[in-house]
Amino acid sequence: MSQVDEFSLIRLLTGGKQTTAFQREGGVVTGIGDDAAVVNVNSGTQWILTCDTMTEEVHFKQVTMRDRDVGFKAMGSAVSDIAAMGGQPRFALIALCAPKGTDMERVKAMYDGLYACASRYGVVIVGGDTTSTTGGITISVTVIGEAPAGKALLRSTATEGDAVFVTGYLGRSAAGLEWLLQRNIPSGLWEEEEGAAEEMASLEGIGAYPLLVEAHCRPLPQIEAGLALSESGVCHALNDVSDGLSSEAWEIVEASAIGIDLMEDLIPIADDVHAYAISQGRSPLDYVLNGGEDYQLLGTVPAEHAPAVQARLGELGIAFHKIGRVNSAHREVRLIRNAGESVVLDKKGYNHFSGRDEG
Amino acid sequence: MSQVDEFSLIRLLTGGKQTTAFQREGGVVTGIGDDAAVVNVNSGTQWILTCDTMTEEVHFKQVTMRDRDVGFKAMGSAVSDIAAMGGQPRFALIALCAPKGTDMERVKAMYDGLYACASRYGVVIVGGDTTSTTGGITISVTVIGEAPAGKALLRSTATEGDAVFVTGYLGRSAAGLEWLLQRNIPSGLWEEEEGAAEEMASLEGIGAYPLLVEAHCRPLPQIEAGLALSESGVCHALNDVSDGLSSEAWEIVEASAIGIDLMEDLIPIADDVHAYAISQGRSPLDYVLNGGEDYQLLGTVPAEHAPAVQARLGELGIAFHKIGRVNSAHREVRLIRNAGESVVLDKKGYNHFSGRDEG
Repeated sequence: MSQVDEFSLIRLLTGGKQTTAFQREGGVVTGIGDDAAVVNVNSGTQWILTCDTMTEEVHFKQVTMRDRDVGFKAMGSAVSDIAAMGGQPRFALIALCAPKGTDMERVKAMYDGLYACASRYGVVIVGGDTTSTTGGITISVTVIGEAPAGKALLRSTATEGDAVFVTGYLGRSAAGLEWLLQRNIPSGLWEEEEGAAEEMASLEGIGAYPLLVEAHCRPLPQIEAGLALSESGVCHALNDVSDGLSSEAWEIVEASAIGIDLMEDLIPIADDVHAYAISQGRSPLDYVLNGGEDYQLLGTVPAEHAPAVQARLGELGIAFHKIGRVNSAHREVRLIRNAGESVVLDKKGYNHFSGRDEG
Repeated sequence: MSQVDEFSLIRLLTGGKQTTAFQREGGVVTGIGDDAAVVNVNSGTQWILTCDTMTEEVHFKQVTMRDRDVGFKAMGSAVSDIAAMGGQPRFALIALCAPKGTDMERVKAMYDGLYACASRYGVVIVGGDTTSTTGGITISVTVIGEAPAGKALLRSTATEGDAVFVTGYLGRSAAGLEWLLQRNIPSGLWEEEEGAAEEMASLEGIGAYPLLVEAHCRPLPQIEAGLALSESGVCHALNDVSDGLSSEAWEIVEASAIGIDLMEDLIPIADDVHAYAISQGRSPLDYVLNGGEDYQLLGTVPAEHAPAVQARLGELGIAFHKIGRVNSAHREVRLIRNAGESVVLDKKGYNHFSGRDEG
């Protein structure tokens, strides 16, 4: 990570990753190599700006994620913020810090993952900075997206009469993380087990619950769902589930000044989360309500439009689950249990519900 | 830096810093607080994207910079990349990592500096991420600027017949850094010496060479100069001097496939750099050619237009120094010494010139 090698390092990390044609089509006028990148702006759009950081030992460990996964997920978490606004991600910049003496193959693998995720979503990486640090590896990703003017979906627009929905299934990433921490396999082993395929299509041979592991290591931002929700013209609030269903619902409650009632019997539980939770002697809801990093979308639409939105997302192969409703009679997130009991969910977990202290 | 305190931390660091009116005027539709920020885009412009990182012990130490200076300079170095493209900076996002247990007053002081610099240049801080890390404090700043379509100034456009110029004076930051390292005063003392004034207008009472210290701790990106150069319509290549004159001139040489001859007798030496260098028994040129982080602009204009550009910058109070010329007979950066001798400058310093090993 020395200053002297800056240019050859940039070439090592970014060279040949995205073709000139891909960059041109993406709107790049001047890419990596000058003081800054220059990009074209579409008229009639607004830009959506977000930034996300992952640091070693805090957000990832070598026993839970291979270096390529770290890069993929760092890009994915920032791209997911654009999905949560109903936008189209366009450009990214990467700030990577690594301690002196870091094996450059590790950094290169992280960049491979950053590019794999970026290219999957049509995002052009137009710049960045790679520096040394005294601590663990840190990756900050800034993503710039766009949406037609006035169409970005905020947290603050949920209203009485809205149905609350979630795309896909939650809790899978948290279950996968827990399983990885229990196995405690150093990442070197994972690398050996990996085939040449860029997309880590298969995780065979590493034990049970492979899709939970993939959900943790390679979460897929729901850009297509976000765009379809924006284009529907009827979607109100939208959030991505990075911190768990309870926490994200609370964010909508606070931003919109409404209440949310979630119906226990409507909350979808994926088969593998159910099986894993039972094997651990826990309730699947533990993972769904408090597990984060699934990057599914949580939002609200007027109840009368929910069937049409569900049908539209269904055409795209995206599961739309109505899980509750906006209730402006309170300002909380409540879980209506199957027996009819109403429980206030805690923002930082759901201690009030399970008695478990999330610390 | 715990997850639980995320919202109160954001409020502590960003609350009350930039008014809603300032943000609106800056084009912000939705600022800090949602998944991402939403901003308006001007038609007919291109966007300029850049990202810069500063890490403790690598880019700054407590004996050289107060925390507020660290923030100011982190923002300044990214804003300077926009100046180097002749653009107008508009928005910034900040990724700050700090070890667990970091005094929040330190982080707050860094944010104060980030905001002081941003607001000075009309930049709205629209997002960021504050996380813990196992290492020293790291600040990554992404800045988004704009320029009229096709008007951004690149490194690759220097041509035969161009004069090479620099704004202001170089080497001041490097001299200030050296002086600070020699004094080795812990930053706490600096804080006590600081008055209440936001802009660190005065550094009285801390010893000799105060303006060299200010040049190191609070460098001012040359946005106004960059805009004037872009508006002149005749400026060719442009770079900001972040790594020293030799290094930046080499970047233009390599990007433009030309050579540059710098004339020793034309290179301006500030009085304080001269006095400081003499006191250290060194040549002032050491600091000018190899000292970085002055954030002045180095560029080229057709020789016949140089007087008009100089006059225009002079009206704005900006010093324009013609220091050499493009010479397409070679592909190097050469210093033509006062005695007529021609010396090739090394990109990584100027070992070939002084015999000094920059290591």
